[in-house]
Amino acid sequence: MSSEGRVLFDSLFTTERLRAAASDQARVQGMLDFEGALARATAGAGIAPSSAAASIAAHCRAQLYDPAALGASAALAGNAAIPLVRALTERVAAVDALAARWVHHGATSQDAVDTGMVLQLRAALDALDDDLGRLVGALARLARAHRATPMAGRTWLQQAEPTTLGLKVAGWLDALDRHRARLGELRGRALVVQLGGPVGNLAALGDRGPRVVELLAQHLALGIPALPWHAHRDRLAEAGAVLGLLAGTLGKVARDVALLMQTEVGEAFEPDAPGRGGSSSMPQKRNPLSAAVAGAAALRVPALVATLLGAMVQEHERGLGGGQAEWETLPQIWMLTGGALAQMASVAEGLEVDAGRMADNLACASGAVQAGALAAALAPRMGREAAHGLLERAARRARDARRPLRDELKDEPSLRSHLAPGELEELFDTNRSVAASAAMVDRLLERRGG
Amino acid sequence: MSSEGRVLFDSLFTTERLRAAASDQARVQGMLDFEGALARATAGAGIAPSSAAASIAAHCRAQLYDPAALGASAALAGNAAIPLVRALTERVAAVDALAARWVHHGATSQDAVDTGMVLQLRAALDALDDDLGRLVGALARLARAHRATPMAGRTWLQQAEPTTLGLKVAGWLDALDRHRARLGELRGRALVVQLGGPVGNLAALGDRGPRVVELLAQHLALGIPALPWHAHRDRLAEAGAVLGLLAGTLGKVARDVALLMQTEVGEAFEPDAPGRGGSSSMPQKRNPLSAAVAGAAALRVPALVATLLGAMVQEHERGLGGGQAEWETLPQIWMLTGGALAQMASVAEGLEVDAGRMADNLACASGAVQAGALAAALAPRMGREAAHGLLERAARRARDARRPLRDELKDEPSLRSHLAPGELEELFDTNRSVAASAAMVDRLLERRGG
Amino acid sequence: MSSEGRVLFDSLFTTERLRAAASDQARVQGMLDFEGALARATAGAGIAPSSAAASIAAHCRAQLYDPAALGASAALAGNAAIPLVRALTERVAAVDALAARWVHHGATSQDAVDTGMVLQLRAALDALDDDLGRLVGALARLARAHRATPMAGRTWLQQAEPTTLGLKVAGWLDALDRHRARLGELRGRALVVQLGGPVGNLAALGDRGPRVVELLAQHLALGIPALPWHAHRDRLAEAGAVLGLLAGTLGKVARDVALLMQTEVGEAFEPDAPGRGGSSSMPQKRNPLSAAVAGAAALRVPALVATLLGAMVQEHERGLGGGQAEWETLPQIWMLTGGALAQMASVAEGLEVDAGRMADNLACASGAVQAGALAAALAPRMGREAAHGLLERAARRARDARRPLRDELKDEPSLRSHLAPGELEELFDTNRSVAASAAMVDRLLERRGG
Amino acid sequence: MSSEGRVLFDSLFTTERLRAAASDQARVQGMLDFEGALARATAGAGIAPSSAAASIAAHCRAQLYDPAALGASAALAGNAAIPLVRALTERVAAVDALAARWVHHGATSQDAVDTGMVLQLRAALDALDDDLGRLVGALARLARAHRATPMAGRTWLQQAEPTTLGLKVAGWLDALDRHRARLGELRGRALVVQLGGPVGNLAALGDRGPRVVELLAQHLALGIPALPWHAHRDRLAEAGAVLGLLAGTLGKVARDVALLMQTEVGEAFEPDAPGRGGSSSMPQKRNPLSAAVAGAAALRVPALVATLLGAMVQEHERGLGGGQAEWETLPQIWMLTGGALAQMASVAEGLEVDAGRMADNLACASGAVQAGALAAALAPRMGREAAHGLLERAARRARDARRPLRDELKDEPSLRSHLAPGELEELFDTNRSVAASAAMVDRLLERRGG
Repeated sequence: MSSEGRVLFDSLFTTERLRAAASDQARVQGMLDFEGALARATAGAGIAPSSAAASIAAHCRAQLYDPAALGASAALAGNAAIPLVRALTERVAAVDALAARWVHHGATSQDAVDTGMVLQLRAALDALDDDLGRLVGALARLARAHRATPMAGRTWLQQAEPTTLGLKVAGWLDALDRHRARLGELRGRALVVQLGGPVGNLAALGDRGPRVVELLAQHLALGIPALPWHAHRDRLAEAGAVLGLLAGTLGKVARDVALLMQTEVGEAFEPDAPGRGGSSSMPQKRNPLSAAVAGAAALRVPALVATLLGAMVQEHERGLGGGQAEWETLPQIWMLTGGALAQMASVAEGLEVDAGRMADNLACASGAVQAGALAAALAPRMGREAAHGLLERAARRARDARRPLRDELKDEPSLRSHLAPGELEELFDTNRSVAASAAMVDRLLERRGG
Repeated sequence: MSSEGRVLFDSLFTTERLRAAASDQARVQGMLDFEGALARATAGAGIAPSSAAASIAAHCRAQLYDPAALGASAALAGNAAIPLVRALTERVAAVDALAARWVHHGATSQDAVDTGMVLQLRAALDALDDDLGRLVGALARLARAHRATPMAGRTWLQQAEPTTLGLKVAGWLDALDRHRARLGELRGRALVVQLGGPVGNLAALGDRGPRVVELLAQHLALGIPALPWHAHRDRLAEAGAVLGLLAGTLGKVARDVALLMQTEVGEAFEPDAPGRGGSSSMPQKRNPLSAAVAGAAALRVPALVATLLGAMVQEHERGLGGGQAEWETLPQIWMLTGGALAQMASVAEGLEVDAGRMADNLACASGAVQAGALAAALAPRMGREAAHGLLERAARRARDARRPLRDELKDEPSLRSHLAPGELEELFDTNRSVAASAAMVDRLLERRGG
Repeated sequence: MSSEGRVLFDSLFTTERLRAAASDQARVQGMLDFEGALARATAGAGIAPSSAAASIAAHCRAQLYDPAALGASAALAGNAAIPLVRALTERVAAVDALAARWVHHGATSQDAVDTGMVLQLRAALDALDDDLGRLVGALARLARAHRATPMAGRTWLQQAEPTTLGLKVAGWLDALDRHRARLGELRGRALVVQLGGPVGNLAALGDRGPRVVELLAQHLALGIPALPWHAHRDRLAEAGAVLGLLAGTLGKVARDVALLMQTEVGEAFEPDAPGRGGSSSMPQKRNPLSAAVAGAAALRVPALVATLLGAMVQEHERGLGGGQAEWETLPQIWMLTGGALAQMASVAEGLEVDAGRMADNLACASGAVQAGALAAALAPRMGREAAHGLLERAARRARDARRPLRDELKDEPSLRSHLAPGELEELFDTNRSVAASAAMVDRLLERRGG
Repeated sequence: MSSEGRVLFDSLFTTERLRAAASDQARVQGMLDFEGALARATAGAGIAPSSAAASIAAHCRAQLYDPAALGASAALAGNAAIPLVRALTERVAAVDALAARWVHHGATSQDAVDTGMVLQLRAALDALDDDLGRLVGALARLARAHRATPMAGRTWLQQAEPTTLGLKVAGWLDALDRHRARLGELRGRALVVQLGGPVGNLAALGDRGPRVVELLAQHLALGIPALPWHAHRDRLAEAGAVLGLLAGTLGKVARDVALLMQTEVGEAFEPDAPGRGGSSSMPQKRNPLSAAVAGAAALRVPALVATLLGAMVQEHERGLGGGQAEWETLPQIWMLTGGALAQMASVAEGLEVDAGRMADNLACASGAVQAGALAAALAPRMGREAAHGLLERAARRARDARRPLRDELKDEPSLRSHLAPGELEELFDTNRSVAASAAMVDRLLERRGG
């Protein structure tokens, strides 16, 4: 056990792929990928000799470098690219002195740091896309399967009117569809190379700068920015913000699941497994583990997004402190968001639904859950305020007397003139709400091409 | 003077249009626009009588309602729609009892609150777009005019290598172009109606719900969401995030301007005006007022964005507390961001440039600013580390002796074999950097179609 | 209705006293109190003529000044003190030209701005203290009254083991006692005058600076700081942080109340009143209004605290942007926190408790809530893991079969050797938990001197 | 190189001691210290046999446990205490089956988790105190040494009036003294044990609960809380807030240093060392490395504090997600704040001061820096507004003409009647400002007992 590692909660809070994208190794490899591609690009543009590119690329493998040593030097240099470029140069020089002279040619540290970060971000987005696909698929199946499973719709944590589980799930699904669209737009803007040299004008490359940028982008399969963006961090901050939006939705889904899983509600449950969500002191516990993880992410990610936004104020051609503030923050955002995503994907795939309990709970408040439907039906006949007032008073009496609202209303003389015989029974039927909910689910699924 | 108003800093921090979009009047009018359009839509869908729509619409003017009274009732009701709908119903009932029964038909408070907020947001985005156009236009002109005006490029708040003012400005411009693209995407996603009824299934409208939503959207010139989004707040949070990204860039521009305006730098200045940026105690002061406003916005907005992201965790069909957290936060974001934007647009339009001081400052560190160019030139000849080390030592000696770096290097015997006669002079010429910077500016402007 | 007011939610989110402390009037009066006291202090120190102080003080009433005009000028000047000092000087000059020359003597704008803010903060803290006293008093009474009222203790939103309502309330109370201690410490540090002149050395007052500061503090009943603190904002940021801590606890209490008030739980309720927490569409709704307000505050305040912390980075003798970021942020913190506090005080004073429902819910999970007590008792006899495993399996079987855990355990042969006859019954008795909880409540109340 | 480590920036951003306090090893040891002390306490209270305590304590060394395995289990269990207690129990059982039955007796996972975190926090605070002492000592020496070293006081990033380096440093020192006081108060409140059992009533310990808590606290040298605080997190959040305040001040000091170190200012410098703050492309660069680190911390910590405040809303007896959000956040706060602190301590100990450049810069704006002193002197003679206006116009003319303000004023006829012969010269003397600044420094140092 390293005395300084801090990985105890890694498996709890994130996934292996997202950790890998955030690891020291990925960071070093990202910078090395930049250096290797830069060497090829300068050669391709006729600046460096062709032979140099191959010699340099041969040493662009993270395994060759000791992160502890790089870290110690980074503490003095202010970033990890300076010692890495030095180490790379030494390695290359040991076998090809001429090639060594072309390492990092025309670039500045931040070119390597930023392009490396973009490569890490791409790997993280790829991983997120996969889990998002998994979640969306599971939710679409759930929405379809439970399109007409009645349950209490709840507002302000109070039963409101009947809905269906399918419509609740469809709401989750619809929000996640929007996140997919945002992630697509983000890729187009954020996954670009960084190459500007010391102050962003690529002066050292003369008039061949644009060609080098083009080749660099081609080698790394990244986009070409209109200008170097050393002190303009909106691309990375946007990545954080889009993930922050996703984390918010995942937190909402998690809160819903945890609330449904309460002992007194018991309508849906995270998938069960031996030892999952247990307690050290209470053997009966079945805790909403995934909801806790996603909930924690939803608490942590917004602040990290704020950090990225606040760090955008970077001075002149390259700033002081702002860049450093991003290095650990953006990876934390993708690790936490991705961890929440993976947890909720598993929940969606294995959600246990207790439709019987849903029906029981719908009935538990003595039919008060239908008062809104009654109000909507009565308002056009007797006026909004009159109908609302009559029902509010009746609901209060029914609640105090623990008596069904329907019975309370049957005794209400002022209602008779407004309702046809049997209509009261009809209005207490949840079928209309269920049908309306199911129709909404159907339209969404159809629209999605399902 | 109202004893409770808090508008003292309104003119400092924001603009009239953005304040108007955030005002109580706009909020009330937004909800009334919803109610009026809903009445027309339910009539159009054959639910309410046609006559009712006109009667209702006639009372949907904010001036008819007393915000103080609405506010007092909102404190009890939990939102402003409940007392507003009641007041509207009473007004309508006074002249057309039948119409009054169709007020708010099928809707819930949050439908009015959210659609109203979206309408306010649209007005705010319109105002922002105008000022953004103004800023972008001014920056494009500045970039062109100063494409080849030499100045020190600065990194880590230290002189680094020469660049041009035009390239610095082009960097600002390029970032703002990206924000315009984001704002466009945002409009498509965020400017949609909200109509779902109590739990989002529009049960009270039977099978005519979709038609009502369609007509409502048409009347308000808003988009149609796939589903009601009562508890899915990513649209509004995205609005905050996109504005937060913009605020970050504006803060960066402001920081640059303030740094250039320092007494010891004096390269560029906010436009001057009598009394602008003065001091109560120091008559000579000419403070960077706009930069302070934009800087304050860049400090405040990120946290407000985090609030919106954190508030996304809203329970079940409609949440508890999360929605309330948005009501003042999103308008604050647009007011602060828009205030910063207007300030920086004025700065861009009237920026005073002291090109002479820029040239003086470039020379002030005895030519050390050229060391990077020398290193880039020497690396391929003598090796990266050797060149870097030689120049680092020479720069240190020159600094300590307050002697030009060029003179220091002339005395350096190890350089002679690597430099052609006269080449040292050439490398101390800033023209190459200026040309490279100007070419970058030209490419950006061309690409923008300028 | 002003076209620009934004007060619609004032009554919902905060209290009259806290709004008053944050109002433009309070801000102007705070600065005027500074100017009046400064005039007296400079006179008292023998700098200004005694007659000047009285003439100046006579015009230090906020009602004399037009905030709209001040605001318009502040937009140009960068703060409200500059135009206010000018207006004050003009007023004084109109009646006493000599006195006018001593207005603001030796001070800079920020001296007035900061001291004024401290005076506003004091008024806010006074108001908060009163409501905090009210809340703490009500909770102490509730804790005592319900020291032995059994209810389910819940962890991870699952029933865990029995506790009492009194102990839950005692936990709230204990946290609030700590906040009172923090508020006391804060007052000693934060409620101090600001007087430093342009760069904080009071040079214009010669060697009488310290005496003027002393008299100023005395006149305003504020403390004397060791040094001016223009660019050191820890005092105000601490005020925000301490209130942020309080808001967090209030949010926790609110969440608990809202969860207890759920339709399916129904154990405790916010006080009822006509129209309180209603719905525009559902007549039966009784929404946790206070919990929503406090919940919204708990979502908003943390970010505002972060703003104050981030704004502490203020340059040199007086910063750029950071100060401006505080002006609206700190008052928002006290308004939101105080609004939450007042709401929860009302809830505590009027909480409706349904002890019968608490007992019902304790029983609802077939006695599984006692599994922890069983595990604790069995562990020393049969080993932790064995006991835990046996009970986990039994609880799972009981849950699946919807059968009381006790019955499940009676059939468990491996238990017999570990339990004395009748001991199982005893372990299913909640009395031990209730007694332990009540004893904890008693110790806390005794310790508090109750 | 581990494929998942993320320690590359550890040496840059924090110190070894603070990393150690945050490490997995410290976390595991913290929980084991709790378990060991709990065993002794239950024995001491006559619950567990005395022999058990020794057997348990013998296995309470972190080195015995594999964090990778614990982490994997924590992902299923939801916290690290559950698998650790299981592993500890197994180890104890292997040698002393009886003792094993008393492991974790009466406790719940969170008791171990929280008490362990408090022990880690104590170690972190100890480390911080040491570096804070170092910083405060160095600043006191600097303040004394430069009590009368003239430099430009700057407000809004503009030269304002003369001050001394000593007074600037004294301002830093004074703020840090307040942080020390806060840290002291924090220790009293935050460094307490956690022991409550499943729902915080210690039911399993019968009437001996209080005695066990007392002994536990004694063994760990921690305080005794009035009640268990499972769902009341104000203690830990306060720790974050107090460190956040400290980080803000450190960020302010860092910003000042970076600004002084600008090429065009050059008044003070971070200590120099080979390779420190260099650049990969610009050999002449001497970057403010420490300021960048402290600046990054000041950008990151506020948001992390907001996370802790937001996470305070924890449900019922133990919450869902909120606790998990703290686990990595609080250690990040202490690591980042402590890293900034160590950097600034080194800067203070080795700050290079260029008093000559300070004097040059004071003179650079043609004496305009004295305009405030002139205004203060003239206001009582000719009126505030008249004096201010006259000087504002003169300063503007002098600036435009690049002419000394003194010369401009000599030609000003309206001044003659207000100034004695030679008085103008006197008012342009910085000595009065220097003396006032030095006196302030002296008073502070005396007050501190220096």
